[in-house]
Amino acid sequence: MTDRTIGVGMVGYAFMGRVHSQAWRTVSAFFDLPLRPEMRVICGRTKEATETARRRMGWDEALTDWRELISRDDIDIVDICTPGDSHAEIAIAALAAGKHVICEKPLANTVPEAVSMVEAAQASPARSMVAFNYRRVPAVALASRLVAEGRLGTIRHVRAQYLQDWIVDPEYPLVWRLQKDKAGSGALGDIGAHIIDAAQFISGQRIVGVSGLTETFVRDRPGGRVTVDDAALFVARMSGGAVGSFEATRFATGRKNALRIELNGSLGSLYFDFEAMNELWVSSGDEGFTRILVTEPDHPYVGAWWPPGHGLGYEHSFTHEIKDFLEAIAQGTDPSPSFADGLRVQQVLAAVEESAAEGRYKEVM
Amino acid sequence: MTDRTIGVGMVGYAFMGRVHSQAWRTVSAFFDLPLRPEMRVICGRTKEATETARRRMGWDEALTDWRELISRDDIDIVDICTPGDSHAEIAIAALAAGKHVICEKPLANTVPEAVSMVEAAQASPARSMVAFNYRRVPAVALASRLVAEGRLGTIRHVRAQYLQDWIVDPEYPLVWRLQKDKAGSGALGDIGAHIIDAAQFISGQRIVGVSGLTETFVRDRPGGRVTVDDAALFVARMSGGAVGSFEATRFATGRKNALRIELNGSLGSLYFDFEAMNELWVSSGDEGFTRILVTEPDHPYVGAWWPPGHGLGYEHSFTHEIKDFLEAIAQGTDPSPSFADGLRVQQVLAAVEESAAEGRYKEVM
Amino acid sequence: MTDRTIGVGMVGYAFMGRVHSQAWRTVSAFFDLPLRPEMRVICGRTKEATETARRRMGWDEALTDWRELISRDDIDIVDICTPGDSHAEIAIAALAAGKHVICEKPLANTVPEAVSMVEAAQASPARSMVAFNYRRVPAVALASRLVAEGRLGTIRHVRAQYLQDWIVDPEYPLVWRLQKDKAGSGALGDIGAHIIDAAQFISGQRIVGVSGLTETFVRDRPGGRVTVDDAALFVARMSGGAVGSFEATRFATGRKNALRIELNGSLGSLYFDFEAMNELWVSSGDEGFTRILVTEPDHPYVGAWWPPGHGLGYEHSFTHEIKDFLEAIAQGTDPSPSFADGLRVQQVLAAVEESAAEGRYKEVM
Amino acid sequence: MTDRTIGVGMVGYAFMGRVHSQAWRTVSAFFDLPLRPEMRVICGRTKEATETARRRMGWDEALTDWRELISRDDIDIVDICTPGDSHAEIAIAALAAGKHVICEKPLANTVPEAVSMVEAAQASPARSMVAFNYRRVPAVALASRLVAEGRLGTIRHVRAQYLQDWIVDPEYPLVWRLQKDKAGSGALGDIGAHIIDAAQFISGQRIVGVSGLTETFVRDRPGGRVTVDDAALFVARMSGGAVGSFEATRFATGRKNALRIELNGSLGSLYFDFEAMNELWVSSGDEGFTRILVTEPDHPYVGAWWPPGHGLGYEHSFTHEIKDFLEAIAQGTDPSPSFADGLRVQQVLAAVEESAAEGRYKEVM
Repeated sequence: MTDRTIGVGMVGYAFMGRVHSQAWRTVSAFFDLPLRPEMRVICGRTKEATETARRRMGWDEALTDWRELISRDDIDIVDICTPGDSHAEIAIAALAAGKHVICEKPLANTVPEAVSMVEAAQASPARSMVAFNYRRVPAVALASRLVAEGRLGTIRHVRAQYLQDWIVDPEYPLVWRLQKDKAGSGALGDIGAHIIDAAQFISGQRIVGVSGLTETFVRDRPGGRVTVDDAALFVARMSGGAVGSFEATRFATGRKNALRIELNGSLGSLYFDFEAMNELWVSSGDEGFTRILVTEPDHPYVGAWWPPGHGLGYEHSFTHEIKDFLEAIAQGTDPSPSFADGLRVQQVLAAVEESAAEGRYKEVM
Repeated sequence: MTDRTIGVGMVGYAFMGRVHSQAWRTVSAFFDLPLRPEMRVICGRTKEATETARRRMGWDEALTDWRELISRDDIDIVDICTPGDSHAEIAIAALAAGKHVICEKPLANTVPEAVSMVEAAQASPARSMVAFNYRRVPAVALASRLVAEGRLGTIRHVRAQYLQDWIVDPEYPLVWRLQKDKAGSGALGDIGAHIIDAAQFISGQRIVGVSGLTETFVRDRPGGRVTVDDAALFVARMSGGAVGSFEATRFATGRKNALRIELNGSLGSLYFDFEAMNELWVSSGDEGFTRILVTEPDHPYVGAWWPPGHGLGYEHSFTHEIKDFLEAIAQGTDPSPSFADGLRVQQVLAAVEESAAEGRYKEVM
Repeated sequence: MTDRTIGVGMVGYAFMGRVHSQAWRTVSAFFDLPLRPEMRVICGRTKEATETARRRMGWDEALTDWRELISRDDIDIVDICTPGDSHAEIAIAALAAGKHVICEKPLANTVPEAVSMVEAAQASPARSMVAFNYRRVPAVALASRLVAEGRLGTIRHVRAQYLQDWIVDPEYPLVWRLQKDKAGSGALGDIGAHIIDAAQFISGQRIVGVSGLTETFVRDRPGGRVTVDDAALFVARMSGGAVGSFEATRFATGRKNALRIELNGSLGSLYFDFEAMNELWVSSGDEGFTRILVTEPDHPYVGAWWPPGHGLGYEHSFTHEIKDFLEAIAQGTDPSPSFADGLRVQQVLAAVEESAAEGRYKEVM
Repeated sequence: MTDRTIGVGMVGYAFMGRVHSQAWRTVSAFFDLPLRPEMRVICGRTKEATETARRRMGWDEALTDWRELISRDDIDIVDICTPGDSHAEIAIAALAAGKHVICEKPLANTVPEAVSMVEAAQASPARSMVAFNYRRVPAVALASRLVAEGRLGTIRHVRAQYLQDWIVDPEYPLVWRLQKDKAGSGALGDIGAHIIDAAQFISGQRIVGVSGLTETFVRDRPGGRVTVDDAALFVARMSGGAVGSFEATRFATGRKNALRIELNGSLGSLYFDFEAMNELWVSSGDEGFTRILVTEPDHPYVGAWWPPGHGLGYEHSFTHEIKDFLEAIAQGTDPSPSFADGLRVQQVLAAVEESAAEGRYKEVM
């Protein structure tokens, strides 16, 4: 265990702020890290709410101006947990100030913003990472490892869905996630981004072309007009010859957080559903699918926690993310997924929107 | 129980011939029907093989010329179990001779053939039916009933896959199903047709536009060049406002006969996987999905068989199909799915192929 | 295919009669057998009902006296589908007349009856079999094969349940299965017998001692007093050192026909649930459980039917039973399970009843 | 959020110490509590290891003498995470010193020890709790709530298993859990205790009599002779008329931490398996089992965490336990499960051992 500390400041204190806080608080107790994070500053727009969050989540200080946060010498890492419309500005400023940056997904609301963030990351000596946390679910990390080891052979099919149902009720109000100026897009950028990243991460193939459609089932809600998609569906071609089928929706009644991905290769297949996040199903073709309980000591990240059969939860994916980020900072390497990976996802999102608008197959630029 | 018999002649004796025979042999023992079918003639191209099939499957006579079969007075029903390239010719001739026709799917290999078959059906006093047997799996029939009763509300999503893996091995030979001149298309027409029909049947909505792609992973096999698709994927718009995601493949390693369909509506959802064919999963949104074992007396077709919990098999879907066909003949009504339904599927298949070839969204004509 | 026929007469036409009839009708169409069964006579107590059953199920003649059936020269096989209180009398008479006998389970209502049946079987040149049909579910047969091959190592645990719920409603009437004089016992003999047989069959170990209890939750029903158990539970020691846990009940609300069995061995485990009868779950310990879809050509009995992924139903277990019985007759060998196997089950049932009555561990005599 | 703090001292730093530490560290960030715990002292026998644990787990001080811990004024709560042979001594001393005590399960290694602990608890003004953490898994707490609300009607069956496989390998060494003097018993007390408590907690019925057997499959291991059971199985009668079937084993190859419990009532049933700890399966009889993802805001404990569909892990059950313990302390009420509940479990364990030894049914004293 190290005594070398590193100061963390977090911007945003809602859902993502809470789960990131739990990760910062927990990571040193389970992983033997080269740096011990200290939860120094939490930053939000409203003074009182930020102070309440500070006490609840256990940060040392509360600020209301992220520029002040960035200017402080005792802050080495800036953790961005705000809506997508402020990611670029904060991240670019933080990187310019030499701070390491971990930024929630999607990286930005537009491709140009994402490009400028990648440029800022490349120009800075600091480290940057985009928080596609599902890569750090042990079962997803194991899936990626199995593909990388060649256990599935050549990947032919990727089949990914992210199904939720939290706005099926037409009386659900117009929150920021339903407004294009704040969120960039709807299901597509919010949850579609996760399956795009997961598909590329696990398969080792990039999405190179898409043909899709989007739909908004409920246009008017209490609070105003919905300006984003409720659902986005597309088929895709991938860089290694695989074909893919993708679907993100907030109207899958009864599905709560069903991030699902199946890969079929020439030698085997695998299947994951986040609603049973401690399981990975793997087939070698002949024998059906094996339900692997991803709780063994030799599974990714798992050895740090509990004995076999004692499952982890959603928040652990963030703890693992922070762990890898801290190690990358200490090693002076680039953590994965980088801002460039985040841009790649953004480009796919843009291609899907264009394909849907134009009714034709679009290559991913 | 009736003493009124009806003579049946079947063309083809391979996989479909075997399962149809079992249905003809069994149906009267379990359902109280207005007509008792007699298995009079089986017809195939090779004399010896047809005779062997006759003895094995229990038909009275064997013939090698389907025209002779059609000309016989003791044959009232012609059951077409041949590859798709001969469907139109046999069906049109049989209908012209006043025979009732049940024809395997897909209805034909091309839209024009299917159109001519529909015209022949309309011109004939006889009854005709296309054998999309999966409609008669009790769980699928129950799914359709639940949607028709409004239990799911407005359907927003249809998500259908038909996953097999029997040609993953590149050494698997070039059978007729891999040749365009005999089979029309590959996974698309063979199994994609089933999920298109099932989706339209259960949802009560027609597919009105598609955007898709097809792929042939293994081009050369022992025996020659593959001229059909190995996999076909598309997204779709449906007549009632739903969006759909469809995928048919023979390269889903470890999936044997996974015909899956999920529907999400404003009030509920349902899910079916043929690999667990006696189960239907239904959700009313709040409470998760209920695994209904579709073996209760009030479930479609089930009352004729065994007590609750005693499952049925693949072949029963055909027995139910024959049962409904015989009842329709006796009542002088048109059985469903009709040749017109078969044409509708054929039109979707054609639109998918055009969309894949042109790289753009295609309306279904 | 043979032309050598063998005449069959069946006593009883209720649930078991229907499913046996379907097996006799179907077996020759799917299996290449040395004998072709002919469905000659069905026998029941009530003339009209028997005649109706004859027509429905496709038997040549109907009789009301089983002694007349046994006396006929054209009857080679007697198939006993009556309640347990008449098994011994009919079977012993049939065997004395030189008829081959297949008898529904449990073999008898008491151990002495079962002993006399075994003696009759040993004294007769004819073949006899007790119809524990679940042995012929392909997944169960595969389970037995895997254990016999040593794939699970030394078996340490057997965990078996047979859960139904058809009499949870206290208004369900007093049918014969709830009367001791007709049925012998309740859940214990009706469905407990199946899991006892399945456990011994799959594990290769006999139950040598038991400690159990029985319960009748609803004593009075429309029609009179229940004189059998509603549920029976026991723990057991087995001949190879395994320990077992067994439970049979008709009060497991929501479980329709859940015959479940799990075995744990030194090298692996397996699990089966009849409510998903085409699946067998197998583990080699390290990697979790693999869901084997028991529909491959090399799985027991399956090659005769459909392609992979096309499941079988409840009735197929009987078709397989008849197939094995006919082969045993032709070969002059003893089919399994024999009457001696049936007696063994009866002895366990008796030991459980004694243990429950006396409140102590009982060795199986 | 309160500023009122309470000082905690923990004895033991192994598996249980790690998970309790995580609970103490986390609880205030997610629950709005009347007392804020401060992690003041960790206590272990070995100085260096305790100091390492202190730094890793985040305690203020390390001690090697638990008597010193108990004597400190800044310690209000003593958390006992040692093996069972020291529970009684530590707990009784701590209670005598007026400290609140939370003690790992089983409460003690023998009934007399447990009795003396209950007496000490009754004599002390402080609060005491035994850490049957599985009660605080949200799905288990929901199960208990559903039964208490009458949703299942009269409970007739309890079916509980705790299956692990960590000592299947005969080369696994003789750890303290395999030694009677340290652990009291084997699978019976370690994991059987959990299902006994869970069964009583969920059903609302006490176990009043048992008939069981125990087995040690591997007697000699590296390090010496195994003096506890490897597996324990029993059937039971319960205070409300239910019958139960229980099994605890460390030899269920492929089962890692499968704490399973099913209840069948006159109106419905429920099923839980810890290997899928975020799911509860509930049936109302007619409609099959519904898979409830226990992640909704109105489910027990869940509202404090993440949105629907974002599962919790093993450690959260301890966080919930600590939360309830702190609330009970503040309210001056007795938390549940109390030491008396722990004694009740101990009495059942003793009855099982006696039943196994004597081969007869034993009432629970």
